[in-house]
Amino acid sequence: MTTTTTTRFLTLGDAASPIRLREGGMLPEITVAYESWGELNTDKSNAILVLHALSGSQHVAGFNPSLPEVGDFWQPELHDGWWDTMVGPGKAIDTDRYFVLCANYLGGCYGTTGPTSVNPATGKPWGAAFPSVSSSDQADMLARLLDALEIGCLHAVVGPSVGGLVGLTFATRHPERVRNVVSIAAGFKTTVLNRLILFEQILAIENDPHFNGGDYYDGQAPLYGLALARMISHKTFVHLDAIENRARQDVIQADDVLAWYRVRDQFQSYMLHQGKKFVRRFDANTYLRIIDMWSRYDATAEGDADSPEDLLSRCHRAGQRWLVFSIDSDFCLYPEEQAELVKHLQTAGVEAMHITVHSDKGHDSFLLEPNLYTPHIAWLLAR
Amino acid sequence: MTTTTTTRFLTLGDAASPIRLREGGMLPEITVAYESWGELNTDKSNAILVLHALSGSQHVAGFNPSLPEVGDFWQPELHDGWWDTMVGPGKAIDTDRYFVLCANYLGGCYGTTGPTSVNPATGKPWGAAFPSVSSSDQADMLARLLDALEIGCLHAVVGPSVGGLVGLTFATRHPERVRNVVSIAAGFKTTVLNRLILFEQILAIENDPHFNGGDYYDGQAPLYGLALARMISHKTFVHLDAIENRARQDVIQADDVLAWYRVRDQFQSYMLHQGKKFVRRFDANTYLRIIDMWSRYDATAEGDADSPEDLLSRCHRAGQRWLVFSIDSDFCLYPEEQAELVKHLQTAGVEAMHITVHSDKGHDSFLLEPNLYTPHIAWLLAR
Repeated sequence: MTTTTTTRFLTLGDAASPIRLREGGMLPEITVAYESWGELNTDKSNAILVLHALSGSQHVAGFNPSLPEVGDFWQPELHDGWWDTMVGPGKAIDTDRYFVLCANYLGGCYGTTGPTSVNPATGKPWGAAFPSVSSSDQADMLARLLDALEIGCLHAVVGPSVGGLVGLTFATRHPERVRNVVSIAAGFKTTVLNRLILFEQILAIENDPHFNGGDYYDGQAPLYGLALARMISHKTFVHLDAIENRARQDVIQADDVLAWYRVRDQFQSYMLHQGKKFVRRFDANTYLRIIDMWSRYDATAEGDADSPEDLLSRCHRAGQRWLVFSIDSDFCLYPEEQAELVKHLQTAGVEAMHITVHSDKGHDSFLLEPNLYTPHIAWLLAR
Repeated sequence: MTTTTTTRFLTLGDAASPIRLREGGMLPEITVAYESWGELNTDKSNAILVLHALSGSQHVAGFNPSLPEVGDFWQPELHDGWWDTMVGPGKAIDTDRYFVLCANYLGGCYGTTGPTSVNPATGKPWGAAFPSVSSSDQADMLARLLDALEIGCLHAVVGPSVGGLVGLTFATRHPERVRNVVSIAAGFKTTVLNRLILFEQILAIENDPHFNGGDYYDGQAPLYGLALARMISHKTFVHLDAIENRARQDVIQADDVLAWYRVRDQFQSYMLHQGKKFVRRFDANTYLRIIDMWSRYDATAEGDADSPEDLLSRCHRAGQRWLVFSIDSDFCLYPEEQAELVKHLQTAGVEAMHITVHSDKGHDSFLLEPNLYTPHIAWLLAR
């Protein structure tokens, strides 16, 4: 039986104590959208924080058919939790034993304050005026959410992809607040290739004729720009064979006529269809904020540390235990990136286990193949 | 001493016999821009046709400071021939022994009829009305150029990258007109990854606010769209370490402010600078025509054959000898693609030699490291 879940909202900050962001922005207050599963035990020691990927949401598990606060973005494809394979009763993150929590990122479009939210100073959506956000801003917002829920120390933080980057920042900025850290297909610092592919996506959105610097909520959204950005990233998430196989099952859309170019084959049609589908459920300004955050990611800087060893010695002193997963076919966050993270953890004396799963699914394996991850995660959490 | 060269022009077709293109387009006539080096011998048996890559030109070797027919596109960086390392007296393609010829592609922007040329029906540039071109159109245009120059059979066709694809089409559509074929870092049929990366570039240009379907010659060109397309391809041409090293030597451009995003680091600035630099010397409509041609490339179809073996048996019957180069670090046209070409050649009984050069320069190695290619090419040509 599928459990129905509801997104809840919590407001942090007020006029007297606005939220100051790393890159210089300031927000009078933040509403955090979050969901939870399972029961918090009496000593509040069984909480697990899950962190979502670039285009994910707080809706990790179960069924959530309604989120009117985010309008049309809450498309039917989002109603099932994005990690329902891993989070639930008897699953890797067992909601019969743990209280599991996930929040939408600051700058997001699924209920946490972001560019689509109303700017109280103008009564209109923030749009272009919404500031840059950083991984450290996310970590600190989540710490304040835990304060509000009166959770002192988490049993674990679990993050795949960009969620793994934010998890690392949480674990190093708030080392005493987490005992176990699971980082899946993430890394320690963006590589040249990451930054290049993210910069292409930034330009794709910025150059859309409808982008207007980010103030497009009165007119058409930058649909093709965001669709192109999604296409650029899609090939790093999904194995090419899978794209080709799915494209073969697809039909050419009759409306796939661009300005001069007409779509030539099922493969192009499929990619364009994926891009357009994404556009219906995601905001271009949010996408820009999160990929900008990702592009600048450097764990040492986000933790205000002098060196990787200085940073991770905090995890050592706090007695954290780490579990790091690599996916051998990952073309988004390469196995070398997790190896770098593990090397730094070990240099700092942190107890860290590094597991490479072998998959032909690429980066998205963490969504598709729970059995590759479940035994080690369940074992770590039960230790 | 550097030789100064001049681009010459030759017109094919006329109102009575217009040029019909594979994809259905028709051109009343074609002007072909070409250059040559060395002397044609008395029996006209020493001609070598060089085919240029995506963004190349007919100016292969020597120094050509002036091409007023193409306006501002003839930037100083183009004045030295793009393959001066390989073509010249005593070089791999020895202009003391051979008559070497190269023409700009149909649809090009360096003098051959293309979207920037005047449409005689309107008196304005073709723009959006310029038709799709195919590799077979290029091969047939080149055959007519050879007719006009009274060259029956070429000693060799030599093509790197897209030039290798067109060379394969020439050698299979006109098998009796070539004795030796050199294909460098090319292939037999586009892969899913090729098509995906090319489609991203098509969308980047089509979605530029100034593209206007291709009719932009009265206003601003789609600069950022073409720059983004160039960035997307640039990372497949050049090794990432090289990009990072060059970016470190670069300075951040003060004008690198996008709509919302401001350029964050030298690396982004360098990539944007490369894109903007490219835009000054190349036309977006030409870029679209050539990448569309590349994206549709399938040697069997371009040769109007029933199968690879049917296609390449023509080369066997004509007694052609093939030399195929792979570059081990090539992320644009992967070594597997040349292996596919060689497998088909061998199945059809064609004499084919396959050489892999080891380089850390990626696809662009063929421009940068002449010594890796010269001995085998010189040996083949002298046989």
